[in-house]
Amino acid sequence: MSTVPSVLADLLWTIRPSERDGSVAILDQTRLPHRRETVTLRRTEEVAHAIRTMQVRGAPLIGVAAAWGIALQLRHDASDGALAAAAATLIATRPTAINLQWAVDRIVRAVADLPVADRASAAWALARELTEDDARANAALGHHGVDLLTSIAASRDGATPVQVLTHCNAGWLATTAWGTATAPIYRAHAEGVPLHIWVSETRPRNQGAYLTAWELEAVGVPHTVIADNAAGHLMRAGRVDLCLVGADRVAANGDVVNKVGTYLKALAARDTGTPMYAAFPDSTIDWQLPCGDAAPIEERDGAELSRVHGRCGADLVDVEILPHGSRVANPAFDVTPGPLLSGLITERGRCAATGTGLAALYPEAP
Amino acid sequence: MSTVPSVLADLLWTIRPSERDGSVAILDQTRLPHRRETVTLRRTEEVAHAIRTMQVRGAPLIGVAAAWGIALQLRHDASDGALAAAAATLIATRPTAINLQWAVDRIVRAVADLPVADRASAAWALARELTEDDARANAALGHHGVDLLTSIAASRDGATPVQVLTHCNAGWLATTAWGTATAPIYRAHAEGVPLHIWVSETRPRNQGAYLTAWELEAVGVPHTVIADNAAGHLMRAGRVDLCLVGADRVAANGDVVNKVGTYLKALAARDTGTPMYAAFPDSTIDWQLPCGDAAPIEERDGAELSRVHGRCGADLVDVEILPHGSRVANPAFDVTPGPLLSGLITERGRCAATGTGLAALYPEAP
Repeated sequence: MSTVPSVLADLLWTIRPSERDGSVAILDQTRLPHRRETVTLRRTEEVAHAIRTMQVRGAPLIGVAAAWGIALQLRHDASDGALAAAAATLIATRPTAINLQWAVDRIVRAVADLPVADRASAAWALARELTEDDARANAALGHHGVDLLTSIAASRDGATPVQVLTHCNAGWLATTAWGTATAPIYRAHAEGVPLHIWVSETRPRNQGAYLTAWELEAVGVPHTVIADNAAGHLMRAGRVDLCLVGADRVAANGDVVNKVGTYLKALAARDTGTPMYAAFPDSTIDWQLPCGDAAPIEERDGAELSRVHGRCGADLVDVEILPHGSRVANPAFDVTPGPLLSGLITERGRCAATGTGLAALYPEAP
Repeated sequence: MSTVPSVLADLLWTIRPSERDGSVAILDQTRLPHRRETVTLRRTEEVAHAIRTMQVRGAPLIGVAAAWGIALQLRHDASDGALAAAAATLIATRPTAINLQWAVDRIVRAVADLPVADRASAAWALARELTEDDARANAALGHHGVDLLTSIAASRDGATPVQVLTHCNAGWLATTAWGTATAPIYRAHAEGVPLHIWVSETRPRNQGAYLTAWELEAVGVPHTVIADNAAGHLMRAGRVDLCLVGADRVAANGDVVNKVGTYLKALAARDTGTPMYAAFPDSTIDWQLPCGDAAPIEERDGAELSRVHGRCGADLVDVEILPHGSRVANPAFDVTPGPLLSGLITERGRCAATGTGLAALYPEAP
């Protein structure tokens, strides 16, 4: 699973650099599932716009996209000022996912001490490395999580599907390959484990309905979309074997900051005894963050809630769902305290969602 | 508060009988908040259709509507067969809300032993009585719940609003007046208590966004619409003082069957120490139901989730939000175990959400 099957790579690719052209192509995730369109980016500001408007989204992928945002800019101007400006522009796009800051810091540190003339090619090479690292990291998540699925399947008759509930899109589309929460799913699917995925719609931006459903359909994994509200009912009814989610930032104590609504699912998982894990690459861990409540929570435009995008005949349109005069609040993330989770799935293996658990996997951590 | 202020009654009326015309007018709740339209019903089948398609909805209101559904039919044919057929048609429309069955049983019992010639007028009188009883019951809910709000306000500086979170529409529109969960809110608002209501969108049918926001706007109560997913985040952030919801069926042990998503809010309320109450008239209590898990949970059409209704320019349209090929599940209710709740608000007062609590308020119960 460390190499990406070409059929999936062709279908589900999310970001593609072209060194000759000095550009990076992205799959425009605001158009899915109704249109499959790409956007070509050439400057930091274009990458920042794509991140801000969520044409590229998903914590791991925005980290990679930000790295390309710097690499692209340095081809035009690799001065200290241009480097600092590009970094600042990209970091300001979205406050919650730590991968963004991690990737920008990494590339800035790597090139800052180089002669200006060498910076562009070094940044390009590092961005390429981060892109490939992400796919490798997610393959490792699949490796470290798959037995959660195979062990349930093994306790059954072989025909009854393992029922997995996921939230938002912590899928292939949120990464450069495999996804985070979906990595164990795709690996189990490849191994022939019968699966059925409950896809939580994920209001207000509907990443579950728009993106996770689309990519599961593309790969051929059976799934059913539900309202976010239905997750608790399904767990109480014994219709969920396992919850798998991603993470936008993980605190040093094991708290998970993820798409708003994750906390509610974790409460239901604990109340019903349903195992629940968050899966993420190392770059999602914020060792400086003592607990989840210390993380910044992005408040996004209320129009994400009040306007719903969809297909009306052959057209794509936005419809207003609120009465005139009603105000909207739109916090994009919430905090799931570690004790609500069964554990964490990282590149290095699984651990308890605690400071001790993380420290055991990452003894070198600060 | 036992009489309905005429300005609100004119604006927010939900059902209006006309004896001379032999009809009942309803406010079509599938058109709100974008259009304010009424539908005139003359036969059982028309009432059943209105209940099924949720032109009339809300547990108390569908009980009243069903009573009118029988009263209308008996004007044309008051035979035993017609009475039984009308009752069966109406009860089959929606399985979860017990008020429907309660109202139908009550009217059937009241007229079945009368001479056929007297049945129509008796049914009409009883339907009118049930309509007025509902408004009175809800006024009582306001009376018994208002101190939950005034006591919070009294502990403050007088300007900081009391923050109430509600789910779905357990409002005026779900009843003949005042609403259930909203009755204490409207009473506190009338008493000058500063309030701010968090309105949970309530996917898939958006009753919070479409209906609760609209009626709060109409009455002038400050409010903010949120994604259902955001409720947990707001409670963790200390931005909710109290959760108030309605109920579609309450078990003898105090479990509350209500709009799907209520359970998740109750979990967050318990986890964060936020008080949460369910408010309902006596007709919502199902003394035959030992616990919530024994209640039938209605599974509704998946198109309620996959198609979103809204305003696009001057038009009202439905947009498809799902990719082709994705399946949908749409359970409409969930069960909130009594121990998650701070208590219940009934016509007779407040009690613990337990069998003992209910039995103390209703010593005559079977």
